[in-house]
Amino acid sequence: MSGKYLVTGGAGYVGGVVAQHLVEAGHEVVVLDNLSTGFREGVPAGAAFIEGDIRDAAQWLDDSYDAVLHFAAFSQVGESVVKPEKYWDNNVGGTMALLAAMRGAGVRKLVFSSTAATYGEPVSTPITESDPTAPTSPYGASKLAVDHMITGEAAAHGLGAVSLRYFNVAGAYGSCGERHDPESHLIPLVLQVALGRREAISVFGDDYPTPDGTCVRDYIHVADLAEAHLLALDAATPGEHLICNLGNGNGFSVREVIETVRKVTGHPVPEVVAGRRGGDPAVLVASAATARERLGWNPSRADLAGIVADAWAFAQQHAK
Amino acid sequence: MSGKYLVTGGAGYVGGVVAQHLVEAGHEVVVLDNLSTGFREGVPAGAAFIEGDIRDAAQWLDDSYDAVLHFAAFSQVGESVVKPEKYWDNNVGGTMALLAAMRGAGVRKLVFSSTAATYGEPVSTPITESDPTAPTSPYGASKLAVDHMITGEAAAHGLGAVSLRYFNVAGAYGSCGERHDPESHLIPLVLQVALGRREAISVFGDDYPTPDGTCVRDYIHVADLAEAHLLALDAATPGEHLICNLGNGNGFSVREVIETVRKVTGHPVPEVVAGRRGGDPAVLVASAATARERLGWNPSRADLAGIVADAWAFAQQHAK
Repeated sequence: MSGKYLVTGGAGYVGGVVAQHLVEAGHEVVVLDNLSTGFREGVPAGAAFIEGDIRDAAQWLDDSYDAVLHFAAFSQVGESVVKPEKYWDNNVGGTMALLAAMRGAGVRKLVFSSTAATYGEPVSTPITESDPTAPTSPYGASKLAVDHMITGEAAAHGLGAVSLRYFNVAGAYGSCGERHDPESHLIPLVLQVALGRREAISVFGDDYPTPDGTCVRDYIHVADLAEAHLLALDAATPGEHLICNLGNGNGFSVREVIETVRKVTGHPVPEVVAGRRGGDPAVLVASAATARERLGWNPSRADLAGIVADAWAFAQQHAK
Repeated sequence: MSGKYLVTGGAGYVGGVVAQHLVEAGHEVVVLDNLSTGFREGVPAGAAFIEGDIRDAAQWLDDSYDAVLHFAAFSQVGESVVKPEKYWDNNVGGTMALLAAMRGAGVRKLVFSSTAATYGEPVSTPITESDPTAPTSPYGASKLAVDHMITGEAAAHGLGAVSLRYFNVAGAYGSCGERHDPESHLIPLVLQVALGRREAISVFGDDYPTPDGTCVRDYIHVADLAEAHLLALDAATPGEHLICNLGNGNGFSVREVIETVRKVTGHPVPEVVAGRRGGDPAVLVASAATARERLGWNPSRADLAGIVADAWAFAQQHAK
């Protein structure tokens, strides 16, 4: 059954891939993005595009929409530490306006792009949704505030909502890949070294209590992630706020990622060991049991070489 | 050394008592309150009064102020469950505007009225500031969001801030006592029965794992609480966000409170045992070790009969 969906932030990396999956599934898709960090060409063919801010969502939302998929947010952890007010204003204030617009229009289904950053330093591994939330950055705190806001909205006003807490999203799909400014994610950074655009990759700490001493993260292919969003649309239940971690449950170390990039690209990737950065936990791995059980999600692209190969294809294309 | 302080919500119960303590200590006090839940007569003599909203704080704040003490908030847990958007908009959105006004005016010290409701169901007792925060109402979630916001503001912009997480504030001081609408706090409710304004007090659950089966809470005299705010002004350190629980560390059960009201007032207080309410933990008691160590706080009015006697005097006066 085809539906009509508003995708906020649909000109960004994850939002764009999800929008493309929705179009491919035969749905009517309207992307709302102010292009403050997104790219016009990231909006998939077949989706309508509104250049606008979520604060003004009431201008466009009406009861013809079946749901909102909400990705629009600032997402740079480092920037959030320096300019926290920007994150509270946009991520939290913007979502308040979006929820009000949804109430006004009678749109009662929401899938929200949350994050593992809501947990902060893990108390155990893998991380489950009932673990404590103690974000260590304004970015994580702003996303947690929105999760709490959605919980209240579901209980009070019958919203059916699913928050998906992403671990390390990677890979590419169609015209959408990772390009942050400044780039801060490991795989695109290592690929920039492979492309000769950076001299070496910095390894921040090689004395962690992990098999090779470098930090372990849970990388998930953006297409697997996108599929979870479509499943979440089906799973959303009026009055309930379901929270699901999205990860593979397998961790890869920084050194494993670098070695995989060497193999996939055939390029040498010099590395430089630097000191640990504050606030980097040794291991961040998801328990995605809830997503498997409640959404019926079954990620099929957990192979790191495959994730890197897709990211490499995008990086080469984008480098031209 | 006398200072100049803006007290938001200073026409309310706790804000009014703190404003009065500041006036008595020889400070210049300006109360900002929109009177949406406060009372004009709650503003102490000797304080200036601005009837206005914290969203417009930039109109009045300038660098002549030494600090802001921020109490303005909606604080009814039950209402927050029904109208969560009101709490996000006012408590969180309002504080965003207040912090922006403080940045603009160069006012770099803040004492914030936080709450034990940020913790939710306790994982152990007494509750310490490093315990997990898992609020169970939009009210608690909105206060936690503000605490997170202040943490970021301190780290990024050098704010010196203290959040005080109140347990069960009670008693009265000067012209300020508890009068919520609807009343939801135990001591004023029991006093209404003593006054003959209610037929009986409902005891929500007498089968909790506590000595007499009723819920145990940590009651703190509002004057003790106010003293912690003045100490917090001294303790606030640029770039640091200090969070302190405020409680006596002694719990009293619902039955002990009712019995104390009978003794203090000399009136019979019929009670009716009702079922447990959802979301009521058996025991909520604070560890106030941080407040004692970091603020030098030493509450001197922990005696329940004294707290009830002060509340009774206020209730009788207000009943006339």
